[in-house]
Amino acid sequence: MNKNLLEQLVQARQAQRQMMNVSTDNKNKALQNIAKTLKEHIPDIIVENQKDIENAKKTGMSKAMMDRLFLNEERILSICDDVLKLIHLKDPVGEIVREIKRPNGLLIQQVRIPIGVFGIVYEARPNVTIDIACLCIKSGNVCLLKGGKEAIHSNRILVYYMQKALQDLLPVTSVQLIDYGGREMVDELIRAYGYVDVVVPRGGAGLIQHVVQNATVPVIETGAGNCHLYIDKEADMEKAIDISVNAKIQRPSVCNAIETILVHQDIAAKYLPLLYEQFQNCVEIRGDQSVQKYIPCQQVTREDYATEYDDYIVAIKVVQDVKEAVGHIAQYSTKHSEAIITENIQTADYFLSHVDSACVYHNASTRFSDGGEFGFGAELGISTQKLHARGPLGLQEMTSYQYKIYGNGQVRE
Amino acid sequence: MNKNLLEQLVQARQAQRQMMNVSTDNKNKALQNIAKTLKEHIPDIIVENQKDIENAKKTGMSKAMMDRLFLNEERILSICDDVLKLIHLKDPVGEIVREIKRPNGLLIQQVRIPIGVFGIVYEARPNVTIDIACLCIKSGNVCLLKGGKEAIHSNRILVYYMQKALQDLLPVTSVQLIDYGGREMVDELIRAYGYVDVVVPRGGAGLIQHVVQNATVPVIETGAGNCHLYIDKEADMEKAIDISVNAKIQRPSVCNAIETILVHQDIAAKYLPLLYEQFQNCVEIRGDQSVQKYIPCQQVTREDYATEYDDYIVAIKVVQDVKEAVGHIAQYSTKHSEAIITENIQTADYFLSHVDSACVYHNASTRFSDGGEFGFGAELGISTQKLHARGPLGLQEMTSYQYKIYGNGQVRE
Repeated sequence: MNKNLLEQLVQARQAQRQMMNVSTDNKNKALQNIAKTLKEHIPDIIVENQKDIENAKKTGMSKAMMDRLFLNEERILSICDDVLKLIHLKDPVGEIVREIKRPNGLLIQQVRIPIGVFGIVYEARPNVTIDIACLCIKSGNVCLLKGGKEAIHSNRILVYYMQKALQDLLPVTSVQLIDYGGREMVDELIRAYGYVDVVVPRGGAGLIQHVVQNATVPVIETGAGNCHLYIDKEADMEKAIDISVNAKIQRPSVCNAIETILVHQDIAAKYLPLLYEQFQNCVEIRGDQSVQKYIPCQQVTREDYATEYDDYIVAIKVVQDVKEAVGHIAQYSTKHSEAIITENIQTADYFLSHVDSACVYHNASTRFSDGGEFGFGAELGISTQKLHARGPLGLQEMTSYQYKIYGNGQVRE
Repeated sequence: MNKNLLEQLVQARQAQRQMMNVSTDNKNKALQNIAKTLKEHIPDIIVENQKDIENAKKTGMSKAMMDRLFLNEERILSICDDVLKLIHLKDPVGEIVREIKRPNGLLIQQVRIPIGVFGIVYEARPNVTIDIACLCIKSGNVCLLKGGKEAIHSNRILVYYMQKALQDLLPVTSVQLIDYGGREMVDELIRAYGYVDVVVPRGGAGLIQHVVQNATVPVIETGAGNCHLYIDKEADMEKAIDISVNAKIQRPSVCNAIETILVHQDIAAKYLPLLYEQFQNCVEIRGDQSVQKYIPCQQVTREDYATEYDDYIVAIKVVQDVKEAVGHIAQYSTKHSEAIITENIQTADYFLSHVDSACVYHNASTRFSDGGEFGFGAELGISTQKLHARGPLGLQEMTSYQYKIYGNGQVRE
């Protein structure tokens, strides 16, 4: 293993042990101090961020990526506001989840504790550096951040000021940046079994799959969202159109936006022309032959059904009934979020109990799959796996637990 | 991928979708029927098991392994009794874990659902075939069983009768045996990402590590138990001796038995001779030089500290204080179960809040780390990882959850 990495991993484990017993007050003071310190050094941060931006221009980075890399005063202040919001969220650590009293007198308490050391692998988004570090601090976890090398100057200064702000409150090494090495260092991190307790890849499908295929450390997958909206024959047309528009175009680039609309054959003639009115100037429609009977559109392919566009494109398919809709979703969904629009409670129940996704909606937009919208206050991402946690990952989902058992000399018979 | 395996995986996924909505009643009837069917065919099962035993004799299998492979009427009846006990346990599926009402009128229900498809990799223990299949049935999960080839005849007939008993109640393919291929088929199973939701290795450290290192499917690690007992200077001597004896020799072969005893220097002179009285004729003691001052024993090594003996051997170390004990545990423990014996509440609190293991005990034997002893009724194993579930894995820990969100046309602003 790389020597620098090993040293950071050992320090992370030491910091993790200390973080098991830090007070909520110290964690909150650290967050306060981070926001304060970053605000005091906005010009320095912008200077470093500009170095990354200049390099990005030279290498011909796309505009969309460059926008995510870019920091200005307004953006830094907004990130700091998010940090301050964490202070008001309930600290999950120490909560007694269950208490069991056994006939032999043993008292068993299931108590929430931090998971431990998080390895975060992400792309060139400096805001993620602060977001995740602060979520980890509030939940008592330690983080090793491996951000995209395109953001290296930004990340270095952000972590420098965060560590400065932690002094005297928390172990400084509870937030660490891995600012050397490329893909091979990612691979060492995600195989640092025993040093890292969980790896979270934050980024596109390629990054997530690379981590899943190569990690030996447990992974939490987030963010793959091939989401579906099913318009039932008994849909209220106003809700159907409002939610279609909201779920597709209110913010198409995010994981909880829909990619495919499934529409019941009995309502297609009514729904599709109304949808077309809304989409014709802004969304590219790809439909099957039944769709083409009602509105002009391109021919849809199986590949379309499997694609998370994150863009102003939608696939549409006419289905016979809710069963066909559920079958299509089982085949193509990434198990993130799916919705049904219907006034029939039985049909809604069928859909909600047969679709195996993290979030299933009746008469609401999939765009609500979000930690803030769920009332969690903040989130690490949206989990699309079934182990550990599904859907929005709030502070509570960033914890594990421990059984504390109190006896009076009990032995097993 | 192997064609037979692919076919079984596809069938498992189909069965999984059906299992999402089977009734508790049907699951219980299936368990009842399994016990009944197995009892009716005890002679057939013994004939098949004898084939495995004959082969085992030819290949020179160890006595301990052969004992685990062996089935007789008494053992089969006992396994069937365990199956019937599952009927009386609460079905975790469908439980509403949390209900959130949002200001915009959305109702969010967090509901327990089965995890889905379990891949179980285990050794030549036919009882595990029935135990795990029935735990999966009760929790609404589907299982693909890859048992050791030494038990192939036993496993085939057990799965044959279990599937027969499921007919008309549950999808028959919810319990499947992979009865072909060796290690390479294990590797295909644990890399069947998308088909298998979780892999659980049941067996020795070598098997567990192989699965962790090679799986792309999420893993739940169970059973590695290098457990510690710390005798504090303020220990009650009767409790200290009783618990030392119970935790080490009541059943040394299991994961919740202790392997190392750490004893405070101020009490070593009193405790060690008393312990020696109990251990001298049945336990091999390996101690450091301080231990050797008080009792005869072999010199302990670092390797001893890292070893899970599962045998009548114990490592003993004299420590300066509780901090040194906690440090030793942090270095060598597999994070399964550790205990402190003390009458000082502050010292106990320090130990319980600084030892990062699944189960931490004050004045009780580590042997209680068990689903039955915790009141869970049955268990899949003891998890030593922090993701998903720690400690005894009962039916509840074999579930995931889903958010069901009920709206009335809400869209995101």
